[in-house]
Amino acid sequence: MNPGDRVRVDRADQTYEGVLLPSSDAEQLVVKLDGGYNVGVLREDADVDVLESGVYDIEGDEPDEGESSTIEFDEDLPTISLISTGGTIASTVDYRTGAVTAQFDAEDVLRAVPDLAGRANYRGRVVANILSENMDPGIWQELAHAVHEEIEQGADGVVVMHGTDTMQYSASALAFMLDTPVPVVFTGSQRSADRPSSDNVMNAVCAVEAAKSDCAEVLVCMHGSESDDDCALHRGTRVRKNHTSRRDAFETVGAEPLGVVDYDAAADEDPEAVRFRREHAERDSVDLDIEPALASDVELVKFTPGMDPAFLEYCEGKAGVVVEGTGLGHVHTDFIPTLESHVDDGTTVVMTSQCLEGRVCDRVYDTGRDLLDAGVVEGEDMLPGTAKVKLMWVLANRDDPAAAMGEDLAGEIQERSVPWE
Amino acid sequence: MNPGDRVRVDRADQTYEGVLLPSSDAEQLVVKLDGGYNVGVLREDADVDVLESGVYDIEGDEPDEGESSTIEFDEDLPTISLISTGGTIASTVDYRTGAVTAQFDAEDVLRAVPDLAGRANYRGRVVANILSENMDPGIWQELAHAVHEEIEQGADGVVVMHGTDTMQYSASALAFMLDTPVPVVFTGSQRSADRPSSDNVMNAVCAVEAAKSDCAEVLVCMHGSESDDDCALHRGTRVRKNHTSRRDAFETVGAEPLGVVDYDAAADEDPEAVRFRREHAERDSVDLDIEPALASDVELVKFTPGMDPAFLEYCEGKAGVVVEGTGLGHVHTDFIPTLESHVDDGTTVVMTSQCLEGRVCDRVYDTGRDLLDAGVVEGEDMLPGTAKVKLMWVLANRDDPAAAMGEDLAGEIQERSVPWE
Repeated sequence: MNPGDRVRVDRADQTYEGVLLPSSDAEQLVVKLDGGYNVGVLREDADVDVLESGVYDIEGDEPDEGESSTIEFDEDLPTISLISTGGTIASTVDYRTGAVTAQFDAEDVLRAVPDLAGRANYRGRVVANILSENMDPGIWQELAHAVHEEIEQGADGVVVMHGTDTMQYSASALAFMLDTPVPVVFTGSQRSADRPSSDNVMNAVCAVEAAKSDCAEVLVCMHGSESDDDCALHRGTRVRKNHTSRRDAFETVGAEPLGVVDYDAAADEDPEAVRFRREHAERDSVDLDIEPALASDVELVKFTPGMDPAFLEYCEGKAGVVVEGTGLGHVHTDFIPTLESHVDDGTTVVMTSQCLEGRVCDRVYDTGRDLLDAGVVEGEDMLPGTAKVKLMWVLANRDDPAAAMGEDLAGEIQERSVPWE
Repeated sequence: MNPGDRVRVDRADQTYEGVLLPSSDAEQLVVKLDGGYNVGVLREDADVDVLESGVYDIEGDEPDEGESSTIEFDEDLPTISLISTGGTIASTVDYRTGAVTAQFDAEDVLRAVPDLAGRANYRGRVVANILSENMDPGIWQELAHAVHEEIEQGADGVVVMHGTDTMQYSASALAFMLDTPVPVVFTGSQRSADRPSSDNVMNAVCAVEAAKSDCAEVLVCMHGSESDDDCALHRGTRVRKNHTSRRDAFETVGAEPLGVVDYDAAADEDPEAVRFRREHAERDSVDLDIEPALASDVELVKFTPGMDPAFLEYCEGKAGVVVEGTGLGHVHTDFIPTLESHVDDGTTVVMTSQCLEGRVCDRVYDTGRDLLDAGVVEGEDMLPGTAKVKLMWVLANRDDPAAAMGEDLAGEIQERSVPWE
């Protein structure tokens, strides 16, 4: 058997069928499954059947770190760094490097997505290879350091390949941890590369164009509609995955997306392919900086009728709690003494709304005024998930976390819309 | 001082200003505040200043239960029962009855909303007088019994006046607890009656017209747009408050609303004012029945990255847990053993998605398959809040709760949309 062969691997009651990939770990077989993911299987005691030889044209040797790419550096093109964290889109690029290689080069990128050729000089690195539901604050920090390093070393833009499930949380985390002079563009794929409706090529092309654009923010670039017309550019702190399976699942909440990438124009390498529709930080208007510290003991609690007040008592001693309340920012009156006691113990408690759109306002009704009296901080119009990530960040980086929660730090609080008289 | 006077009441460092209402409790003063709510203040040690006499024309005596209304019963009109639970809209109708009267009559209704005249014979009752964030399963049961009684006694439709914050949960609860041959229409108000943009009159008129319509379901009737053109009719199990303050905050998730009430046509008493756009249960196609039992120890837990797994351990021993997962229905791999142990202990665990739109599908990715192996039930495309209410109901009323969670009982699971190939 050789890398590139289609194989069936049986080991310990598990059967995997797919293409054998090169592995740098002699004890592991790496198999790219038909769904797009790579699995590692211990070689010992594994039975391998070769179903078809040479399905993929893979050179058997691993890329050497020092090896120079056969693709020449083009001084007229910007340099874009691709960072892989796993998920459906990364599995396209990673098919050769598998779960085991920490760096990949332009050749790997172009072999995976030939449409990226001629748009930029590429370099790449793997920060993680996980399904995004397993993303955690520790990996956010590694990712922030990796992006920071890439920009420091001259990248003109960064594309982060990320699973879609928790992309909004990671994008928010990077928006708070990093000051970036260039675009940091998250992209992913709702359908794996082996499906005819896959969105991976278009999202990757549009993300690279967005990473070259005149912007200095953390963005999410995903399909803007069910057709293949354009990708929307969302501000990382305002975006939400609003559909389980549609390719255009991502939406900016409470506003239009920041901008759009026209796919036909991008395919023609039209410099006008990326258009911003709203005010945004322009390229090089921000100095590169990183503040990666995060408080880990912060929880988000969603209030629903009939909820056991003991649930909130569990949050005793936490550094922070974000409550996803009803309407303008309410919970059952019975919960207020518990929240007050948490505040008295030093927990920062922030109120948001499960409505998603609109601003909390705890000055209108009795319950809200009681919450304010208890020391609960109003979360303005922040998305609850973004508010949680922000609270983790301000608790570790700001002297007055409660005050910082009310300030717009990374576009997470939108300007007050027309007041409702 | 007399009921109807504008007063300032000082007691124990609190000051209330508003209109004095009749009180059936000699120890309590009931004051209608300018915001629309009623407060009860202990008469003892209270200082009352009359600011203006006779602001409201209120007869000082309480309505006798046996007293016949001065408004004659019209045999040609249907009879609509109005049930008040509190909230912004109820405060309009309740201004005379205050927090203390269990029944009100047609005269009270028409004094509050004169536009309702000539549409129906009215009768009314108060089930609660609370802000809806304080709604709880016990009051859902009282409400279901009240609606059941009203229909049993001949009501041709029921309008439930309810605060908007938790209306979607209460409407779901009644949809599961009741089989109704007539419309049960929840309505409320996002702006109180004293504000120029109040939506209370239009919502009340449209809700009464919807309660007269050819339908046998639990509906929510609220503004369909920011203008005063029409109200949307939402199925109770599919509706969500999606904006903190807009009058058209309520939306049917994943589909068009069931129907619409044209306000101009309704004002003209046009019988075509209510139009259904989608299939629905028709009037008298269902036999009246009530199954009001609910399991109380059911929790909803929203998963977010960085969440402490101990949070889920708190749910040990609960009858049911609804998880609001990411994407197609995922949580961090570290949480799966805890969920599995809950299932092994007899807890019914149901997976839903925080995406809101779309269906969970735990057969696509490894995490999902592991969740299914752990015995977690897929929540189809149910809204997480609706799934929680349904789980409370099926645990108390069905022999196989896990199987019942996968069946469409009250429109909460929509037909599978076009499959995503």
